[in-house]
Amino acid sequence: MLARPDTMSQSKGTVVLAYSGGLDTSCILVWLKEQGYEVIAYLANVGQDEDFEAAEKKAVSLGAKKVFIEDLRKEFVEEFIWPWVQSNAIYEDRYFLGTSLARPCIARGQVKIAKQEKAQFVSHGATGKGNDQIRFELTCYALYPEVKIISPWRLPEFYNRFMGRTDLMEYAKNHAPDGMFMMTVDPAKSPNTPDELEIEFKNGVPVKVTNLGDKTTRSSALELFMYVNEIGGKHGVGRIDIVENRFIGMKSRGIYETPGGTILYQAHVDIEAFTMDKEVRKIKQQLSLKFSEQLYNGFWDSPECAFARHCINKSQEHVAGKVQLSVFKGQVYILGRESPTSLYNQDLVSMNVQGDYDPIDAGGFIRICSLRLKEYHRLKSAMTPKSK
Amino acid sequence: MLARPDTMSQSKGTVVLAYSGGLDTSCILVWLKEQGYEVIAYLANVGQDEDFEAAEKKAVSLGAKKVFIEDLRKEFVEEFIWPWVQSNAIYEDRYFLGTSLARPCIARGQVKIAKQEKAQFVSHGATGKGNDQIRFELTCYALYPEVKIISPWRLPEFYNRFMGRTDLMEYAKNHAPDGMFMMTVDPAKSPNTPDELEIEFKNGVPVKVTNLGDKTTRSSALELFMYVNEIGGKHGVGRIDIVENRFIGMKSRGIYETPGGTILYQAHVDIEAFTMDKEVRKIKQQLSLKFSEQLYNGFWDSPECAFARHCINKSQEHVAGKVQLSVFKGQVYILGRESPTSLYNQDLVSMNVQGDYDPIDAGGFIRICSLRLKEYHRLKSAMTPKSK
Amino acid sequence: MLARPDTMSQSKGTVVLAYSGGLDTSCILVWLKEQGYEVIAYLANVGQDEDFEAAEKKAVSLGAKKVFIEDLRKEFVEEFIWPWVQSNAIYEDRYFLGTSLARPCIARGQVKIAKQEKAQFVSHGATGKGNDQIRFELTCYALYPEVKIISPWRLPEFYNRFMGRTDLMEYAKNHAPDGMFMMTVDPAKSPNTPDELEIEFKNGVPVKVTNLGDKTTRSSALELFMYVNEIGGKHGVGRIDIVENRFIGMKSRGIYETPGGTILYQAHVDIEAFTMDKEVRKIKQQLSLKFSEQLYNGFWDSPECAFARHCINKSQEHVAGKVQLSVFKGQVYILGRESPTSLYNQDLVSMNVQGDYDPIDAGGFIRICSLRLKEYHRLKSAMTPKSK
Amino acid sequence: MLARPDTMSQSKGTVVLAYSGGLDTSCILVWLKEQGYEVIAYLANVGQDEDFEAAEKKAVSLGAKKVFIEDLRKEFVEEFIWPWVQSNAIYEDRYFLGTSLARPCIARGQVKIAKQEKAQFVSHGATGKGNDQIRFELTCYALYPEVKIISPWRLPEFYNRFMGRTDLMEYAKNHAPDGMFMMTVDPAKSPNTPDELEIEFKNGVPVKVTNLGDKTTRSSALELFMYVNEIGGKHGVGRIDIVENRFIGMKSRGIYETPGGTILYQAHVDIEAFTMDKEVRKIKQQLSLKFSEQLYNGFWDSPECAFARHCINKSQEHVAGKVQLSVFKGQVYILGRESPTSLYNQDLVSMNVQGDYDPIDAGGFIRICSLRLKEYHRLKSAMTPKSK
Repeated sequence: MLARPDTMSQSKGTVVLAYSGGLDTSCILVWLKEQGYEVIAYLANVGQDEDFEAAEKKAVSLGAKKVFIEDLRKEFVEEFIWPWVQSNAIYEDRYFLGTSLARPCIARGQVKIAKQEKAQFVSHGATGKGNDQIRFELTCYALYPEVKIISPWRLPEFYNRFMGRTDLMEYAKNHAPDGMFMMTVDPAKSPNTPDELEIEFKNGVPVKVTNLGDKTTRSSALELFMYVNEIGGKHGVGRIDIVENRFIGMKSRGIYETPGGTILYQAHVDIEAFTMDKEVRKIKQQLSLKFSEQLYNGFWDSPECAFARHCINKSQEHVAGKVQLSVFKGQVYILGRESPTSLYNQDLVSMNVQGDYDPIDAGGFIRICSLRLKEYHRLKSAMTPKSK
Repeated sequence: MLARPDTMSQSKGTVVLAYSGGLDTSCILVWLKEQGYEVIAYLANVGQDEDFEAAEKKAVSLGAKKVFIEDLRKEFVEEFIWPWVQSNAIYEDRYFLGTSLARPCIARGQVKIAKQEKAQFVSHGATGKGNDQIRFELTCYALYPEVKIISPWRLPEFYNRFMGRTDLMEYAKNHAPDGMFMMTVDPAKSPNTPDELEIEFKNGVPVKVTNLGDKTTRSSALELFMYVNEIGGKHGVGRIDIVENRFIGMKSRGIYETPGGTILYQAHVDIEAFTMDKEVRKIKQQLSLKFSEQLYNGFWDSPECAFARHCINKSQEHVAGKVQLSVFKGQVYILGRESPTSLYNQDLVSMNVQGDYDPIDAGGFIRICSLRLKEYHRLKSAMTPKSK
Repeated sequence: MLARPDTMSQSKGTVVLAYSGGLDTSCILVWLKEQGYEVIAYLANVGQDEDFEAAEKKAVSLGAKKVFIEDLRKEFVEEFIWPWVQSNAIYEDRYFLGTSLARPCIARGQVKIAKQEKAQFVSHGATGKGNDQIRFELTCYALYPEVKIISPWRLPEFYNRFMGRTDLMEYAKNHAPDGMFMMTVDPAKSPNTPDELEIEFKNGVPVKVTNLGDKTTRSSALELFMYVNEIGGKHGVGRIDIVENRFIGMKSRGIYETPGGTILYQAHVDIEAFTMDKEVRKIKQQLSLKFSEQLYNGFWDSPECAFARHCINKSQEHVAGKVQLSVFKGQVYILGRESPTSLYNQDLVSMNVQGDYDPIDAGGFIRICSLRLKEYHRLKSAMTPKSK
Repeated sequence: MLARPDTMSQSKGTVVLAYSGGLDTSCILVWLKEQGYEVIAYLANVGQDEDFEAAEKKAVSLGAKKVFIEDLRKEFVEEFIWPWVQSNAIYEDRYFLGTSLARPCIARGQVKIAKQEKAQFVSHGATGKGNDQIRFELTCYALYPEVKIISPWRLPEFYNRFMGRTDLMEYAKNHAPDGMFMMTVDPAKSPNTPDELEIEFKNGVPVKVTNLGDKTTRSSALELFMYVNEIGGKHGVGRIDIVENRFIGMKSRGIYETPGGTILYQAHVDIEAFTMDKEVRKIKQQLSLKFSEQLYNGFWDSPECAFARHCINKSQEHVAGKVQLSVFKGQVYILGRESPTSLYNQDLVSMNVQGDYDPIDAGGFIRICSLRLKEYHRLKSAMTPKSK
């Protein structure tokens, strides 16, 4: 039997453990008590499919002093997913960063409880080679610098004891909650008729989704996100099998699904292109690249990430309008877009209307652009040895 | 009747015209003769669906002094598309740059003919508001700085005469050849069973494609590219409807299809992630961003683009191996990959093997990473006004 | 004689001319009248050494309908130079962008007058190969899109007539006002004792300068800037002889002096390094690079420049404190700095105090950083052909 | 007494220690023996002012099994400093990276000896909070992945014993050799007449320096570098007092002198601007920024740094010519430059010659550039609420 609390004469202090109800964090809970800590179990609901009531009972039965269950879904969507939608951030061109967003949200909640309960310790079940340990701990240190972190999967006394237990390891692989991201159906088995959605944005954030078929609408952040997740899942959108570079420098294989995120990403990229100035876009694209690394590496609660979020949010001032799209067999097709703040000028671009535009100017523009190229040609010609 | 060559007492010189056989460049051909030029028609085959024999006859019948038809398909694939595959370059996160690649290839051929035929002029049918005029002309100026370019759609005497002709304009909209990129089928009407391909890369360039179903293989560059284009087209891969920012600063809507390019892009991104160091990848990603702008804006024949291509090519030294993927209903799904030069280390990443890795180190790594964050917390706490 | 206003039966409209009182813009004034325009002379005082009263008389005597003289010095310093100080922007690693800042300030004033006076035209004396024409005109177009710009040095009818006049050309070389930047003394002839200054910053902007020797202080923006300019000039600070790349792609030689700007740049870089987080600094450095190009190329009044300025300003929130420096023989030496918002932690960095820092962590940090390098070594070793 | 070798019954193995002859590494030598290691002392001459013979004797007397003294000066200049000169890399806008270059050079030599002598361990005297430990160890791990590193200043058993010894700590502060960089004189006490130098470059690397006064010339890499270092030192060039961000995230104050490096930097920036295309320069500038971080953080022997060096070297193909400069009172003034491969075109830039340039084109160029700005103005006007 794992737990021998009676052998403990005195508590080493209180630990707030990010608890999932699963085998791994249950083991950790018991082990922490065995080591002489009082344990508070913290369960954050960021949308994962979990029986929170059962988890609570289990935590209590394993000896947790207290259990906190918090529904963070609304703040997860509004304070984490929405800034990500604004950013278009994708890690290494492919990964949509779902888990990376959930970690700091959960850790923030856990730190709040730790401070409130005057706990000096926090703990979690993330493994010792992955990114989640970093994401979790950097947020804890950033928000609660004096905290002590117990990371059992990095402690030989823990992992040497449990490592052989393949069942536990297997469980741990499917580790902690990955947020809103539920399972998608196989695109091959997805419906043979598309769903057509219209997504409305203000300040680069989705404010309304309308199913153009059955006229379903969702306007609150959480409901909207859950709805696009549902539609994406139904059509098998957002599955990837990739090799990625972890922060600590290893390559690892990851299989992810991001149904709602993929739909919102496509729609946002489109409305942004329609409403954002070209050169602003270039600067913002660089900020997004940085933001994707910050997120992936666990630096949500850093000065640089706060700065990047501020700048990206500023860039979204005029990103407003509606995008129509079709979701079908794992794909999202943009059908059209409209915006009150578009920089698209039909007259300017038309082939039948000159508008304010004189094509003669393009000739001057091109000749000026070619000046450098001609100089370079001159130099290279001069440097080419001439035969007799 | 347009042509009145007999009224011309003396030639203004020789023009090499990029001729497509269509209505627009036919009009230009006749108009150039009318203006007193001798016209050489130049038809480049970069894979577009066209009856070159008929076009040649037409050019002759309209009064072309000479007609040159060149099959540039092999060099288009090897010297333009392959560097693009190495780069992963995408313009504004969505456009795969097909036409951007074809322009400098065609212009280079045309310049070669102009020099050979001692023609002082070149001409083309690109419109006065688009990107193609720039791509075309920058290459001409870069390779043949003394050349004079006649761009009829920018000349009032031309466009005022032809602008009302909606049929011509309509035709012109579907302007010049877009290279290898043929029509895709509607994904909704595409086959209900996927094709599974294995694509092999060396130095970041595809060297062999194998259909894992019927065992078809293609190894020569041109055949390989035509085959993935065919498979992509069959499954409706690579269709997009976007708003993009033209070089001259207008936003315009573009509808593109890049079936083969999309497959190769996905496969290359995957094998590159598997074999390229993380930090090399970041530098290369920035080079690709630059490269995408150079390509889009027409600077293929510039010192900066030559430099970017050199560096990108250097980055591909170890990008080798095989990617298995499935093509289905408009999507490309990566199934797996293998490589003799992978930086993926199964032992290192495994949860059951510590290998050379001590998880304790991760704790030190995280605490060092958190130093800055703690300092920032200290500063912000010190700055927060304290209530009594 | 140039001016023949009596031959004009009817005005072509009103032009607001950026007038300097010199030979070149005087010629332009007369030539514009000769062409049938009514001319309003606009003289902006951005700190250049000029007799504005004399210039006004001259403009009137040459036939200007009205003359506006505006003292823009305060807004030039506060709205243009201060954002530049915040940015640390240097073009191509060397040029401090003085003239680039003055152009949009002057053009903005000129546009205001043009709108107020209902003038449809503006004009200037910048040459046809330089950057100033672009800086001037982009601001005019951005703020007054319907305006017509008359740029005489680009009009053959003007420049063919005046080009031979070497005296005029010589004068034009030393073209329009370069703002606050007065002459510096030769460092070889500068004083043999340094001046020591203390510059105080808030939000990255200088708010007070104190001469540590004679206790002179300046606190208002304009006076502060004039004072550091004076001290810099006295000690020969900020002279450079460079080759730069103009926006239109030519290389040109430029000889500049930026006495005050150089002092403020050095002081600001120092206080920023002391107070800004490392990773925020990296992002901000990229924004500054972009900002330097925007400024140099004339895009002050563009959405991307407004965006860059906003973000840079945001980054300066905690950039506050005092920098002590010595100005001597063309050099600026930083002597020390202090700040209420420093991220510098004496305890943390001390060699005698461990503080919150455990050096064991550095070992873990380094080993984690080396993981990639070891994998790369493994790959390269595997690929090296082994001799028998 | 520190050393008690007789108490050791069996050796723990052989350590190659980077030995400086100073108190700190002498302590380490003795301590390592005390711990049961056999110690090989390694002294690298990278130009520092040191009595190598005395150091050798001392090492032997303290019980070193062997002593290796290597003159790495030539390879330090050719393989480390020259690539840096090509790069223009400056860390955080101010630090010239001298020590950062010396570390990997020394560590490489040390690893070579360790392999040759079949030593499993290496050791060094760098402190536990600084950058040098990282630079040293990353190179060791990269070139010799199996090596074990003993870093005494990170081991409590070592630093707790020696930390109180202020004299040792004081010594350690002036830690290991900083390469070629000797002391500069105080600019205030430097000569009242300048030295004028001409530096010739090929492929971006200095190949000859000529003193235009006394006609001294130096052509071999080592002698050339020592000469510019001497001239720079004589005139007090390259002293800075900065706050920098260490890799581990602390801010620290650094006082550096880089006399020769500053001269070569200024000269190289100048000849590069004269010969390198504008857009190539922009890409290269980004690579240099990356390179400066790689160098500073100790990643010389990484795939990304090898890649950056390759690309930077490629960019230098046409960087050739001569730069004349004056060195005086702490400053370097560029006087002029000439090059067989310059992209500077006197005719093109001249105000009296139109050359191949038609100023009319600039008008078209500017109007095209303003298109976006006008659209943005239109959008903002439309969004401004109108009063009744």
